[in-house]
Amino acid sequence: MHEFNYKKGQLYCESAKIEDIARTVKTPFYLYSYKTITDHYNKLRRAFSSARPLICYSMKANSNLSVVKILVNEGAGLDIVSGGELYKALKVGANPKKIVYASVGKSTKEIQQAVKAGILMFNVESLSELNMINFVARKLKKQVKVAIRVNPDVDALTHHYITTAKKENKFGIDLNTTRDIFAKRRAFSHTKIVGLHTHIGSQITQSKPFIDAIRKIIRFISELNKQGVRLEYLNIGGGLGIIYKNEKPMTAELFARSVLPMLKKTSLKIILEPGRFIVGNAGILVTRIQYIKRTKKKRFIIVDAAMNDLMRPALYDAYHEILPLQKINNKNRGSKADVVGPVCESGDFFAKDRNLSVLDEGQYIAVMGAGAYGFSMSSNYNARLRAAEVLVMKNKFYIIRKREVHSDLIRGEEIPRALR
Amino acid sequence: MHEFNYKKGQLYCESAKIEDIARTVKTPFYLYSYKTITDHYNKLRRAFSSARPLICYSMKANSNLSVVKILVNEGAGLDIVSGGELYKALKVGANPKKIVYASVGKSTKEIQQAVKAGILMFNVESLSELNMINFVARKLKKQVKVAIRVNPDVDALTHHYITTAKKENKFGIDLNTTRDIFAKRRAFSHTKIVGLHTHIGSQITQSKPFIDAIRKIIRFISELNKQGVRLEYLNIGGGLGIIYKNEKPMTAELFARSVLPMLKKTSLKIILEPGRFIVGNAGILVTRIQYIKRTKKKRFIIVDAAMNDLMRPALYDAYHEILPLQKINNKNRGSKADVVGPVCESGDFFAKDRNLSVLDEGQYIAVMGAGAYGFSMSSNYNARLRAAEVLVMKNKFYIIRKREVHSDLIRGEEIPRALR
Repeated sequence: MHEFNYKKGQLYCESAKIEDIARTVKTPFYLYSYKTITDHYNKLRRAFSSARPLICYSMKANSNLSVVKILVNEGAGLDIVSGGELYKALKVGANPKKIVYASVGKSTKEIQQAVKAGILMFNVESLSELNMINFVARKLKKQVKVAIRVNPDVDALTHHYITTAKKENKFGIDLNTTRDIFAKRRAFSHTKIVGLHTHIGSQITQSKPFIDAIRKIIRFISELNKQGVRLEYLNIGGGLGIIYKNEKPMTAELFARSVLPMLKKTSLKIILEPGRFIVGNAGILVTRIQYIKRTKKKRFIIVDAAMNDLMRPALYDAYHEILPLQKINNKNRGSKADVVGPVCESGDFFAKDRNLSVLDEGQYIAVMGAGAYGFSMSSNYNARLRAAEVLVMKNKFYIIRKREVHSDLIRGEEIPRALR
Repeated sequence: MHEFNYKKGQLYCESAKIEDIARTVKTPFYLYSYKTITDHYNKLRRAFSSARPLICYSMKANSNLSVVKILVNEGAGLDIVSGGELYKALKVGANPKKIVYASVGKSTKEIQQAVKAGILMFNVESLSELNMINFVARKLKKQVKVAIRVNPDVDALTHHYITTAKKENKFGIDLNTTRDIFAKRRAFSHTKIVGLHTHIGSQITQSKPFIDAIRKIIRFISELNKQGVRLEYLNIGGGLGIIYKNEKPMTAELFARSVLPMLKKTSLKIILEPGRFIVGNAGILVTRIQYIKRTKKKRFIIVDAAMNDLMRPALYDAYHEILPLQKINNKNRGSKADVVGPVCESGDFFAKDRNLSVLDEGQYIAVMGAGAYGFSMSSNYNARLRAAEVLVMKNKFYIIRKREVHSDLIRGEEIPRALR
């Protein structure tokens, strides 16, 4: 469910008419719905309420300060993956005691910053990293909590780029190595292993991979318990899928119902790391049709957004629904069309062979489901300015990130005297 | 050929030891060789010298101001694809009369800027765009030159994202529509069609697609001539491939020899648009090994650069050679390794199953052939800072773009009062 709906043939975000925003802000821009973000967060919170989990919003999906702030205001913790995300988290006043930090390549400096900030824990991805964290903590004279990210070797049944828990993936630690780490745990003088973490992938629509992974891990926890290991936390990661096309993802309730009984038996504090589930359908990319181009073979709708704004179609061959801001009543009329951007690559497309042929130059369209992994992956490719980001709350809109200007393209550049 | 070579077991760029630069600049960073850039440009210039072509460097490959300035100093023109590239071109003092502008989605504003700047010509991609250019030129009371980008429907035999001249691609205008446009050419009061343009794709290693395309176009020009159309320019685009792995691309000389005889018969002024050919092998991405991680299935070399720095492996499944800054003498020893970055995606990799197992934490490696479509496609994904760019001239190095800092991540962002 989301708050982008037609009213009298016009697409609205909450109570704001999107075309009015487009005429003011100009295109392309990302548009987020406050209510959709908070609704999704609260759905998950309510579904799991009997377990009172810590829900850490996964910032990599969308780390715009206002988006993060909305979730922090709702009481969410944060799942971060870099020093940059830590910086943003602290910027919005997040409670460090609700921050968990996962990444296979945390640098020494990033670890230092996180230890100093006093985050809740690190999710540790390798023995080398655990050594590094312990080394940094000792130097800073701090005791640090970590969870071991275990790789349960399950197939999340999603795009191969975003599956993360098969044994050929770089993520997590296999169970045998994890056993070794626990056996040697007293050697880590400044690090306390307080939990296990698992994250099996992204955009997962079925419960089976989650159930398989959690079952494996719970069995493993029993084994550790028998060896005298006491844990406090079980972090089951994120990965809940959303509807882009005709996926039938689990609702928060169904997901909770399928995993809560298992989780409760552990008596551990549960951590969740949802990202896409919260913001994916809470954002759209609004763009204007610049040219209609007919070729012998195809009809192309050339818009002013491009792959530099939204990489998902090029990178994951992702499907995004396309909705015109002014509703088309007879959208099956005429031939199919490709929606493409101005970038000089055939990979620069938003949609292929869609029934959108009645659209014309100057009209606006929305690329739906662009709230997660949209702006966060955007670049200046083709020297294009990164888009504005706009937030709607009821009938008001706020520019939460300005569109870039030309001088942003060359910030930090300097031509050596020898070349001038 | 390029200027990255081992001397006494240490990788140098020209006469500068790269590890010394790495220790000063910190990693990751892009490193470019001045001599390689100018050598490649001058090879092409010499190979085509008998035709005295206008060589327009394709800025989308790498639009760092210093890189563009190097080529402008050598006498190159520029091939631009956006208002942002026009801005950068003018910033380095390029002569507008050597700028050609191609893109399927030029906005009205971009066309205005280019007309005002007095560029040499637009490469026109659709009838709608030609109408728009004529409209803008008339409003600005200017006469504007254009070339029609024709789509010759040939297969460039390269990655499907960077092939651009098959009839299902969004680029160019088919010959029939081009005939119509020429028949109506007097209707465009402020636009003079002075040439034809074709660009069949990128990273093309064989001469046949070029020969096929040029032959088709020359036949078409004869047809137009018979109808009384007089042209001045023939723009044969870019697309010359380079060596990433074991490609055997044409040399500039071979390419010139295979197409020059055809081109000279036309007596038209020739335009070339090389990008990757000039800068591709003139740049590397230098990164440091953060962690070595062994799993049951694989050995992972986790470095401090990631897919946000260099998208080509994830996006095109591109191969990049990996060279340690300190030469390994027995590199076939041990098991194979994957080189991966810290980003939380399995698509974040630089190399798979390479013989690099003797490398260890703290060592530096170079991702070769990263001069084109490297930094230009980089993003802040995972809230990572974009890398520094460094230029070597002989034994000196210059930071031509500073590494980003945390505050760059939130530039232009503002949290609405209602959320604070």
